[in-house]
Amino acid sequence: MTTSPQALRALEWIDAGALRIIDQRELPGRLSRVDLASADDVIDAIRTLAVRGANSIGSAGAFGFALGVRDGEEPRAVAARVAAARPTAVALREGVAQAAAAVSEGGSWRDAVRVGTALLEQDVEDCARIGEAGRIELAGATSILTHCNTGILATAGIGTALGVVYAKAAAGEDVHVYSTETRPLRQGLRLTVWELQQAEIPVTALVDSAAAALLHSGAVDAVVVGADRIAANGDTANKVGTFSVALAARDAGVPFYVAAPLSAVDVTAADGGAIPIELRGAEEVLREDPGSAPLAAADTDVWNPSFDVTPARLIDGIITERGVAHPDLGLGLAALARPA
Amino acid sequence: MTTSPQALRALEWIDAGALRIIDQRELPGRLSRVDLASADDVIDAIRTLAVRGANSIGSAGAFGFALGVRDGEEPRAVAARVAAARPTAVALREGVAQAAAAVSEGGSWRDAVRVGTALLEQDVEDCARIGEAGRIELAGATSILTHCNTGILATAGIGTALGVVYAKAAAGEDVHVYSTETRPLRQGLRLTVWELQQAEIPVTALVDSAAAALLHSGAVDAVVVGADRIAANGDTANKVGTFSVALAARDAGVPFYVAAPLSAVDVTAADGGAIPIELRGAEEVLREDPGSAPLAAADTDVWNPSFDVTPARLIDGIITERGVAHPDLGLGLAALARPA
Repeated sequence: MTTSPQALRALEWIDAGALRIIDQRELPGRLSRVDLASADDVIDAIRTLAVRGANSIGSAGAFGFALGVRDGEEPRAVAARVAAARPTAVALREGVAQAAAAVSEGGSWRDAVRVGTALLEQDVEDCARIGEAGRIELAGATSILTHCNTGILATAGIGTALGVVYAKAAAGEDVHVYSTETRPLRQGLRLTVWELQQAEIPVTALVDSAAAALLHSGAVDAVVVGADRIAANGDTANKVGTFSVALAARDAGVPFYVAAPLSAVDVTAADGGAIPIELRGAEEVLREDPGSAPLAAADTDVWNPSFDVTPARLIDGIITERGVAHPDLGLGLAALARPA
Repeated sequence: MTTSPQALRALEWIDAGALRIIDQRELPGRLSRVDLASADDVIDAIRTLAVRGANSIGSAGAFGFALGVRDGEEPRAVAARVAAARPTAVALREGVAQAAAAVSEGGSWRDAVRVGTALLEQDVEDCARIGEAGRIELAGATSILTHCNTGILATAGIGTALGVVYAKAAAGEDVHVYSTETRPLRQGLRLTVWELQQAEIPVTALVDSAAAALLHSGAVDAVVVGADRIAANGDTANKVGTFSVALAARDAGVPFYVAAPLSAVDVTAADGGAIPIELRGAEEVLREDPGSAPLAAADTDVWNPSFDVTPARLIDGIITERGVAHPDLGLGLAALARPA
């Protein structure tokens, strides 16, 4: 790899008192960093997807909470505000809750910062373990299709689904990635393609709707995607379109894997029906960017869910930092997710 | 409807000796017409999708051939050039072949024009019959999902899949359309949404990859799409992404229909494997338009098939001008397609 995860670093805490992030809205045109110096800065960055990825918004949430407390906001109020910035990823809610607990136990805002830092470190470690577990599980798979972005730009480490790809590359194995575009915000075409090109890993882009034909062509050995929230039964909420890819993979006989830390498992959700799905505005679909001409009438009705739920029956394995669960076989997720 | 099909008229022959078309590349921003006055004009318009839709490029092919012969080109050479402008739709090949036959039987280029005009008239008639057959088949279905554009802009008449919608609306039935965006060229968001809005038929847009979640939500009563070529067994080549929608519809228990004239049936293709699939350039995926900044590195590898093949096993019915075939039941397509 020409660019190591360390060199890119999608988010880091700086001692002056801010969360420094890569502004993912600017990629691939420009690699620019921005310092989030208040709770509102963090909330805005999460809402607008300047910072994104389930793991990253979890630690960003802890830092956002810390900044709010530092600035004198009532802890419960700021916790609620930050946790509500995006509803689907369980990691955001958990990151804020852990930071709030550190403060409510008599700590200061600096204790909440320490929670954020620990979450970043845990993320790096989890990604490395997920990558290695996936590398072993998918030994022999050289051609991998993924959806959305789950790599260096979505985590503090090497990523989850893309972590498997980086682990393969680091081990000297052949690997070629097919990246869907991932409409409407194109995290696949803008981010996954970009970060794999930086790492000199071969990548081919395709529009989301071409995945079914590609999977049936025999060109793909396995599908690996990330997760924003996983229900206790293995149903997985992830970027909208994941469900379509899973249906096509099953129909084509291509194994379909989710790669995610166990922090993405929400044991309080019995199945996918209990996971809230964020609906976003029409503008994301109707315009390329806020300044561009609309692609359809500005008042066009648009249904724009950010996520969908892939049922466990379509998932061949969930690759976690503690090993691979097989929800389709009724095996392992609950046991893996149990606190050590 | 505030705008009748007659008022829009996607293509018509003008006596001065040109095919006048709506330039679909300019929609929905501008409704502009352009006159195609030579075989090269027609070929370029077909290649760049200024004129599109299986039926429309069939008649355009006949006119393009006529113009080439008028301008002194050797008939077999111009026939081959025009027929090769896009490989997947069988109607293009057939339109050119019929026009060429009229000339080779001792006719002049004007006889080829007459073939084109007859194809346009046949198209209008076929669309009306398909619309009515679909309206009866889908009685009670008020919420219809479609993919790509198959309406007034894709035919000389009211369209195929959208013809069913227009027939419902004309009969005073409630109908609401969900239109996928249809990447990369967005025929759904740019064209289907636009023409339904002109007709004051309620329409909701969604990105292609959201179709699976929508179909599972219970919001859709039936899926109806068009076809570029149908094999003898019912396997159907249509705009890329159709296959994904068909898989999701079957999984969700929503009936999936193809609406197309019998001229789309290629009896020489035993199944979908015999249908050539056009691969288009990377630019369509990498840039919004030729002048805009690339969404990924300009040398990014892109797999960009224009069509995919939906297997007959996923198709509940093929709505034609002679009635509805049920290929999943092994019934009817061959009998319907047999010359009267």
